[in-house]
Amino acid sequence: MNKLESAGHNIYFDTRLAPLAEIIENGKYSNVFVFADRNTAELCLPVFREMLDDFSGFDLIETDPGEENKNIDFCIGIWKTLLDFGADRKCLVINLGGGVITDMGGFVASTYKRGVDFINIPTTLLSQVDASVGGKTGIDIDNVKNMVGTFSLPQAVFIEAEFLKTVPQREMLSGFAEMIKHGLIADQEYYYQLKAADYKNITTAAIHRSVEIKNEVVTADPQEKGLRKILNFGHTIGHAVESYSLSKDKKPLTHGEAIAIGMICEAYLSHKNSTLTAEELEEIRQYISKVYPAYKIKEKSFAQLSVFMQSDKKNEHGNVLFSLLQSIGKCTYNCRVSESDIVESLEYYNLTYAK
Amino acid sequence: MNKLESAGHNIYFDTRLAPLAEIIENGKYSNVFVFADRNTAELCLPVFREMLDDFSGFDLIETDPGEENKNIDFCIGIWKTLLDFGADRKCLVINLGGGVITDMGGFVASTYKRGVDFINIPTTLLSQVDASVGGKTGIDIDNVKNMVGTFSLPQAVFIEAEFLKTVPQREMLSGFAEMIKHGLIADQEYYYQLKAADYKNITTAAIHRSVEIKNEVVTADPQEKGLRKILNFGHTIGHAVESYSLSKDKKPLTHGEAIAIGMICEAYLSHKNSTLTAEELEEIRQYISKVYPAYKIKEKSFAQLSVFMQSDKKNEHGNVLFSLLQSIGKCTYNCRVSESDIVESLEYYNLTYAK
Ligand SMILES: NC(=O)c1ccc[n+]([C@@H]2O[C@H](COP(=O)([O-])OP(=O)(O)OC[C@H]3O[C@@H](n4cnc5c(N)ncnc54)[C@H](O)[C@@H]3O)[C@@H](O)[C@H]2O)c1
Ligand SMILES: NC(=O)c1ccc[n+]([C@@H]2O[C@H](COP(=O)([O-])OP(=O)(O)OC[C@H]3O[C@@H](n4cnc5c(N)ncnc54)[C@H](O)[C@@H]3O)[C@@H](O)[C@H]2O)c1
Ligand SMILES: [Zn+2]
Ligand SMILES: [Zn+2]
Repeated sequence: MNKLESAGHNIYFDTRLAPLAEIIENGKYSNVFVFADRNTAELCLPVFREMLDDFSGFDLIETDPGEENKNIDFCIGIWKTLLDFGADRKCLVINLGGGVITDMGGFVASTYKRGVDFINIPTTLLSQVDASVGGKTGIDIDNVKNMVGTFSLPQAVFIEAEFLKTVPQREMLSGFAEMIKHGLIADQEYYYQLKAADYKNITTAAIHRSVEIKNEVVTADPQEKGLRKILNFGHTIGHAVESYSLSKDKKPLTHGEAIAIGMICEAYLSHKNSTLTAEELEEIRQYISKVYPAYKIKEKSFAQLSVFMQSDKKNEHGNVLFSLLQSIGKCTYNCRVSESDIVESLEYYNLTYAK
Repeated sequence: MNKLESAGHNIYFDTRLAPLAEIIENGKYSNVFVFADRNTAELCLPVFREMLDDFSGFDLIETDPGEENKNIDFCIGIWKTLLDFGADRKCLVINLGGGVITDMGGFVASTYKRGVDFINIPTTLLSQVDASVGGKTGIDIDNVKNMVGTFSLPQAVFIEAEFLKTVPQREMLSGFAEMIKHGLIADQEYYYQLKAADYKNITTAAIHRSVEIKNEVVTADPQEKGLRKILNFGHTIGHAVESYSLSKDKKPLTHGEAIAIGMICEAYLSHKNSTLTAEELEEIRQYISKVYPAYKIKEKSFAQLSVFMQSDKKNEHGNVLFSLLQSIGKCTYNCRVSESDIVESLEYYNLTYAK
């Protein structure tokens, strides 16, 4: 239970980083770097140190927090910092932070001198249940998300519930949306378990199940050629709403809040274009709208949302393709959906909250 | 003879790009881009077009030529250009140019949207016999060579002697140094064949043998953990001399000229620290100094050269490690050499030309 094997590496759960010391020792690393943002350097680094018996044999590389800093300028800065520290190919980078840190740190490590080892210690719920598996690294260019990146596997991943203690509730809910998604696309029982439990008290067992589901999907399709697309459920519309909100709203939606909206819309599309029943659609709508705050998708944004969907990097040959539920716990992919159905699904979402 | 299998892809020789049309068709690419520098856009693109029966189904992305433009700013520009063209994950990048273009184009392609397909058409002798094999991509940061890059394999490589017709003689000699190296480290007969032939008329058969040798070495050690280091023969001192010359000389040495110097020095070290005989050392010294122009390694540069060697990215844990010849055609690696021997080898080189 406290270990899960992923492609070529282990994901450890609540081990208090016990296996890390051995990994560092066996790796005979010339240098160890911890990469963190200002928040995780403050809140997570002391916990990290304590777990490792005051281990201090590393240099800290710190960046500014937030998606807006997941960019190439920071990468250049980190590459140069590694060089200034004399880092050679046998160094190790430990990414301690949320998805921004593990994505950007993974990208920097996988390209510094054509690739050095790295270890991920995701410290937000979102990064634990999602960014922890699949080998995706990435950065944004000109605010285009993950426009540049690699597929590169860490040496190991450590998931520690203790780090979540300092994560704000809104960020927890953001990650929780991905867990609901995992249930919806792959495990009906897990979905109902999540619903039955208190979403304010997320257990390591639940995180473990989410990671397991994502791992199974990713292992079956490491290069995102097919099956892996089911992980995009809720994300085609969700990403568009997220981008729109980022550019327009004073207090933009979190990723999970946007995905929650996307899941309701895409459940609607699943009902209209696949085999999801009316009852299942209603079940999903009710539960998600109970957990997540209401949001109004403005009608005048519909055209812009469509543009965002068109430029989604998962598209091929210019078609917008959806992953749709066949039932709660089963998902299919590469589904074409008409423009008018997409608009209907947005209106359906708005009605939900108007009720 | 006109095809060589490398890790997962083919290297074609003098096929006039015949297999390329099929590769493009089978790949069902959404977009095809040709990446070239100003020189290869002028000199090689017309040849490319002609070979492909006036194929025009691509967009050209052009950069400024030269090592100083193999940098992250150009990469950002190319990533953005791809995005502006609406390039998705199913696009194809064809790198048409010397090692700068294949290295940088390979890096951009292997990271754009976490990796799109690319094909290399190396158009200089150096890039044909060296950069064509091994899956290394890279760019320089702050003039630190190949500080950032990936290991990524192209879909195919096309080596066409016709492109060499416009390559200046000095650039040809630069690539020829790598061919001599291939003979010295792995194939005595090939070395003597190169010596017997006219170095001003390099045959496709010779290029093929060089590529084959590099391919065998690289295939045996894809991640550069051991054996592959024999390809660094001549490069530990050669790179240092090259860097020094770049920073100080009005008309800096080419890579090959620097490696030629490095090979004489490291042959000396091979005689002193390994089993290369005095006769073999003399053979190497004589032949290389016949082909390459004399150069004076200034005594006051010795300390700086030592600093450059220390920072060579092939080092581990701060030791300068050499690849040394056991005989002509056999090479060993990870050899430690004393500071004073290194200085002696530089003096030996200087004496060579004083003779
Ligand atoms: N690689 C993948 O497969 C994958 C999957 C999903 C998401 N992502 C990426 O992850 C990013 C989003 O992840 P995120 O939400 O973790 O972002 P994040 O790293 O920006 O973290 C959110 C905020 O929480 C702070 N924080 C982190 N850990 C904390 C802790 N323990 N206590 C208190 N505060 C803490 C951070 O400093 C930040 O301000 C996006 O860039 C997304 O693209 C990647
Ligand atoms: N990836 C690898 O394994 C590997 C191996 C060796 C070298 N390299 C890299 O290759 C680069 C050097 O290669 P290079 O010497 O080909 O550099 P280059 O690409 O700069 O080419 C040298 C010059 O020749 C011009 N040129 C190219 N093709 C021509 C043609 N057919 N006719 C006339 N002019 C032409 C170019 O515009 C340039 O000005 C370095 O950056 C080096 O790091 C990579
Ligand atoms: Zn998501
Ligand atoms: Zn070389």
